[in-house]
Amino acid sequence: MKFKRTERIGAIVKILSDNPNKIFTLGYFTNKFNAAKSTISEDLIVVKNVFEKLELGKVITISGAAGGVKYIPKTSKAENEEFLMELCQKISDESRVLSGGFLYLIDLIYDPTIASKIGKIFASNIDYAEADCVVTMETKGIPMALMTAKAMNLPLVIIRKDIKVSEGPTLSMTYVSGNTSKVESMSLPRRAVKPNSKVILIDDFMRGGGTIKGMTDLMSEFGAEVIGTGVFISTMKPEDKMVKDYISLIQLDVNGDNIIVEPNLKTFKDEYQKEFVEGDCDIEEIIED
Amino acid sequence: MKFKRTERIGAIVKILSDNPNKIFTLGYFTNKFNAAKSTISEDLIVVKNVFEKLELGKVITISGAAGGVKYIPKTSKAENEEFLMELCQKISDESRVLSGGFLYLIDLIYDPTIASKIGKIFASNIDYAEADCVVTMETKGIPMALMTAKAMNLPLVIIRKDIKVSEGPTLSMTYVSGNTSKVESMSLPRRAVKPNSKVILIDDFMRGGGTIKGMTDLMSEFGAEVIGTGVFISTMKPEDKMVKDYISLIQLDVNGDNIIVEPNLKTFKDEYQKEFVEGDCDIEEIIED
Repeated sequence: MKFKRTERIGAIVKILSDNPNKIFTLGYFTNKFNAAKSTISEDLIVVKNVFEKLELGKVITISGAAGGVKYIPKTSKAENEEFLMELCQKISDESRVLSGGFLYLIDLIYDPTIASKIGKIFASNIDYAEADCVVTMETKGIPMALMTAKAMNLPLVIIRKDIKVSEGPTLSMTYVSGNTSKVESMSLPRRAVKPNSKVILIDDFMRGGGTIKGMTDLMSEFGAEVIGTGVFISTMKPEDKMVKDYISLIQLDVNGDNIIVEPNLKTFKDEYQKEFVEGDCDIEEIIED
Repeated sequence: MKFKRTERIGAIVKILSDNPNKIFTLGYFTNKFNAAKSTISEDLIVVKNVFEKLELGKVITISGAAGGVKYIPKTSKAENEEFLMELCQKISDESRVLSGGFLYLIDLIYDPTIASKIGKIFASNIDYAEADCVVTMETKGIPMALMTAKAMNLPLVIIRKDIKVSEGPTLSMTYVSGNTSKVESMSLPRRAVKPNSKVILIDDFMRGGGTIKGMTDLMSEFGAEVIGTGVFISTMKPEDKMVKDYISLIQLDVNGDNIIVEPNLKTFKDEYQKEFVEGDCDIEEIIED
């Protein structure tokens, strides 16, 4: 099939965008579009501009035998701020407060569009170049962890709370959940994580950090190392978490009926944070409204 | 910011592709690209060609006050067949057989790329024009259900197996799981599904259909109606399922060490099925290999 130049460019954008962090050789495109290498190279220059002008990440060229091009998704500072501010407004809606000080959030965190944006923000703020997989614990973190794994082009591993014998030999552990201060169990099939793997942990909520600490310990049992951690919401108290190095998108404090929710940009990568401190944004004004 | 024609086309492809089934007005694009309506209209003709030539779905124009353009993802017959045959080969690997006749599949069904393709195939074979949400039951079906919801631009609802009081007033029920013939429970917060909703059910595995039947009953309790059902794998036996109207992507029979796995194209939409019967594909040959 014959593609015009404009169509080829659209098609290359679609293919790269659907497959973040996957390397495509020049040969793949010359074949698919029945076009010369020089033609595809020119197309790729336009494609690179598209992603950069939209501030949706970078298309980079990798040289060598395993070379080609790949698309690295990255969210812009402006996009992050707008998205997180909107989300904070939704979260702080009074009707979300449940008895016991819990918040009803599953309509938001299960939403595919929101989960997808969260995944891209995690991928923009966690170094995953060396990572082998994304690990989460069921259930509420799964949508955002899957979208993170998609943006990073990594497999997803889900830790179960019960022991599923139907998954073969399984390693189980107990941990103390900060939510309930109860001893809970987690389990994972032996073959789900290979020894010496480097993993990224993703979870939806962190209070004291007990769950993330438990997941880290479980990874040690597999001989795997945690090289990055992302949580969607962390609470302001306790300030001293069991986990030190993490990014959390939103900070939360519930004081009776009073909910304080704000973007937690200080845990973001330097490039986002510095701009935030020096920049022209008016997040604090919006919060004070 | 100024975009050249080729860049605009790439950018429109990216925006539509990232937001399936979302309507964008012409004004959105004229604003974003600082271009005339006639210019954007011309661009959209090229964009439509891109999706059709790649066989990745359709861009349609909606007239009227709420009008604009939207992208409806759709997988092609050739893509479905290639993807499902590859998957069947992976599934039938002997090393996946666990004691008790179970199969180790979580590395496949949690994979973001695979889950994403499964979601697009479901979206191509289930009528969701009237649907309000996608409903699944934890845990293994969540990744494919999320990707289905993303392709359909619908919210995702996850039924829990335990009762989570932290989600507010919750409706719980028991059902008989075909896997274990045990009575199990499922629960869902009252506010997760609105009365008179129309829902799509997605699950990873169906033997007798007890789980899907239970999910359907739970939806009745919410005053909601199931208008489509998709399962990833269904077993050949029992032939007579509790559920009649569903699409299943793969059919499975485990007979001791002997695993028969094949694409279940007869449950696909007519357009796929007829082509399959009449067509030039060689699926049966591949299976007999």
